[in-house]
Amino acid sequence: MDAHKQLTIGLFGFGVVGEGLYKVLQQTPSLKATIKKVCIKDAAKKRNAPADLFTTDKNVLLNDEEINVIVEVIDDANAAFKIVSTALKNKKDVVSASKKMIAEHLTELLKLQKETGQSFLCEAAACASIPVIRNLEEYYDNDLLHSIKAIVNGSTNFILTKMFEEKLGFKEALLLAQQLGFAESNPKLDVEGYDAVNKWTFLLTHAYGIIESPENILFTGIQNINAGDANVAREKNYEIKLVAQAKKLNNGKVAAFVLPQFIKQDDHLAFVKNEYNGVVIESGFADKQFFYGKGAGSFPTASAVLSDIAALRYQYHYEYKKLYHHKPHQLDNDFYLRVYVSFDDLRHIPRENFEWIEEWHAGEQRKYLVGVLSFNQLKNNDWWRKHNNSLILLPDPVIENIEIKKLKKKSLELAGLI
Amino acid sequence: MDAHKQLTIGLFGFGVVGEGLYKVLQQTPSLKATIKKVCIKDAAKKRNAPADLFTTDKNVLLNDEEINVIVEVIDDANAAFKIVSTALKNKKDVVSASKKMIAEHLTELLKLQKETGQSFLCEAAACASIPVIRNLEEYYDNDLLHSIKAIVNGSTNFILTKMFEEKLGFKEALLLAQQLGFAESNPKLDVEGYDAVNKWTFLLTHAYGIIESPENILFTGIQNINAGDANVAREKNYEIKLVAQAKKLNNGKVAAFVLPQFIKQDDHLAFVKNEYNGVVIESGFADKQFFYGKGAGSFPTASAVLSDIAALRYQYHYEYKKLYHHKPHQLDNDFYLRVYVSFDDLRHIPRENFEWIEEWHAGEQRKYLVGVLSFNQLKNNDWWRKHNNSLILLPDPVIENIEIKKLKKKSLELAGLI
Repeated sequence: MDAHKQLTIGLFGFGVVGEGLYKVLQQTPSLKATIKKVCIKDAAKKRNAPADLFTTDKNVLLNDEEINVIVEVIDDANAAFKIVSTALKNKKDVVSASKKMIAEHLTELLKLQKETGQSFLCEAAACASIPVIRNLEEYYDNDLLHSIKAIVNGSTNFILTKMFEEKLGFKEALLLAQQLGFAESNPKLDVEGYDAVNKWTFLLTHAYGIIESPENILFTGIQNINAGDANVAREKNYEIKLVAQAKKLNNGKVAAFVLPQFIKQDDHLAFVKNEYNGVVIESGFADKQFFYGKGAGSFPTASAVLSDIAALRYQYHYEYKKLYHHKPHQLDNDFYLRVYVSFDDLRHIPRENFEWIEEWHAGEQRKYLVGVLSFNQLKNNDWWRKHNNSLILLPDPVIENIEIKKLKKKSLELAGLI
Repeated sequence: MDAHKQLTIGLFGFGVVGEGLYKVLQQTPSLKATIKKVCIKDAAKKRNAPADLFTTDKNVLLNDEEINVIVEVIDDANAAFKIVSTALKNKKDVVSASKKMIAEHLTELLKLQKETGQSFLCEAAACASIPVIRNLEEYYDNDLLHSIKAIVNGSTNFILTKMFEEKLGFKEALLLAQQLGFAESNPKLDVEGYDAVNKWTFLLTHAYGIIESPENILFTGIQNINAGDANVAREKNYEIKLVAQAKKLNNGKVAAFVLPQFIKQDDHLAFVKNEYNGVVIESGFADKQFFYGKGAGSFPTASAVLSDIAALRYQYHYEYKKLYHHKPHQLDNDFYLRVYVSFDDLRHIPRENFEWIEEWHAGEQRKYLVGVLSFNQLKNNDWWRKHNNSLILLPDPVIENIEIKKLKKKSLELAGLI
């Protein structure tokens, strides 16, 4: 019954993840996977492996017929896409950790998988050690998945934790994250939310069959969160997290965004500190399920790559059931969000854009408001980006279209305005 | 690309789980699964469904060629096995929630699956809403799974939580669990650890390819835990949980048991309160992963049944990779455990059986010791069951054979005995 296939791997990249993978595969012969050749950029750099393992010519790997798996753990999205697409066309299965590449080339990658019949696995690109893609793909049926919210970027979560718990400044916390190897080489990718929205792009495909480019998904990072916002959060007994969220609406479409959010102390995501990631899935009468694990760092990433390699021995491939076997869901902009906005100058806040305002502080020490905005307003009108206002969602931020009139009336009544 | 199959279900059992399932399938036509007939025991009982849906004759379901899936959510293990085995032989796929039946008939069920080629899915029997079987089966390769520890019984966890947090007495807490529907109809099954060890039996198969009958796995429940033990735990800043554990040893074999355990506040399992379940998986350089969700109650159970039904549309079946495609692991007794034992009368404690004793309290108020015992001693010598001593493992309880001499010497030196 020994059904599994011998894997001969061509590896692109020999940084911390690549080298870790090389060592583990050497120590685990039972995995029946060996690295035949490694393609690197810098031939001069000293490596902890025999010199004849390395080449700088990608075609040595891509044209080697004995190599049946390409593992790609490099940092350059364009180069990665060229490698991956050639590998698939050359009848090799692929394991990739390049979220940016996957998000930007989603349509092409789906097409290539269909045309070539090769397997393209990328668990390491999502939440590193947490098998979130696999569970969305295999376990949660379309009709059962009510919502998913997640902390998918370990680096920003590390920074926010340090700002909150050790009261470090933003820059100090970022530097620490970089020193510990949790941050992308370009910190902007993490801090401004690009990495999170890239991951969310293809997680939406596995969760709901949605194909959307990252620039069509509303997102921001934690670049504007400051000590004042952290103080407000503490007063209200909240934490601040960068949360990627998707929720099925009553109209059958899906609301999705990646924005900072106030998190209640008893929310599962409050448990997620430092470089960890967490995913909360709400599915058809199961209440909430919570997956938690290391979301950044070389070892957790390598572990996900390793699990994907192990799966290739059984010819595992994503079926993209939500996309191909169901009626795929569509994103919707027709809903409302409950938001906190801090400001320096009230004149920059277009109050008329709000459906209603629930809270208002404009003293010396603190200037913020809490109100309800239509998602379309927020997406198409970027006043809140221009003046470095912090925009933070309230817990349970989504208000459905059908609820808005009733809630507005109630709010205005409470305020004594009608 | 609509590859999935129309499911026509014969349902055994119309209690809270069965009825919930019936309602949800009615409301979700896109699942393409309909319940054709329901077999019940008591024909006289009033049901919230058309009378012609019901029968008391199991053969009406088992011999109906149109029915291609049997879902079995009944409480009687012997009856369940007869139903399941006949269904598989009659070329029907099966979804089952009967942990006792599965644990007691593991070998036969494996054989039946092999012979008939039918699918037998039982996620609901393990941790209800947490997809632990699926993840062990599909994601964690044999060589990557270092250890797994879990709270698999929601009822005992609920009782312990109430004893700890609200200082309820044991009986009061049990009654509350029963009222809320978290406890088995026979509370002994939960409280004395039978339910947990039953689940652990087949989880060991999915995790490590181990086939063992429940009576060969060392277990006990929480029946002897008393307020004094809870006080000691609080002093040491621990909680007490009933923990099912399996750990790969250096010799390649596996240590496995289900015993009460002191849990540190920062252990993932400390997060698991009330009727929730939690699973901590340690895998090849991924550090720890944590899965958390509702582990008892009708809705979480029904949700797992529903996910299994959804999977049958794609002809999903367990491959039992660890068993059939790898060299399966074996259980080992050749290791040591660090244990706390409370006692009324010191004369009932065979101190000579301990490798060494690290702590000792024999005052008026509290009588307990902490020491190291060989697993064989504990398993074959049941002095600790006879006198209702509480036996509770310390955190990280497993001491490997190769470490024992060094640790013993160190401990005796510390005590000034050598």
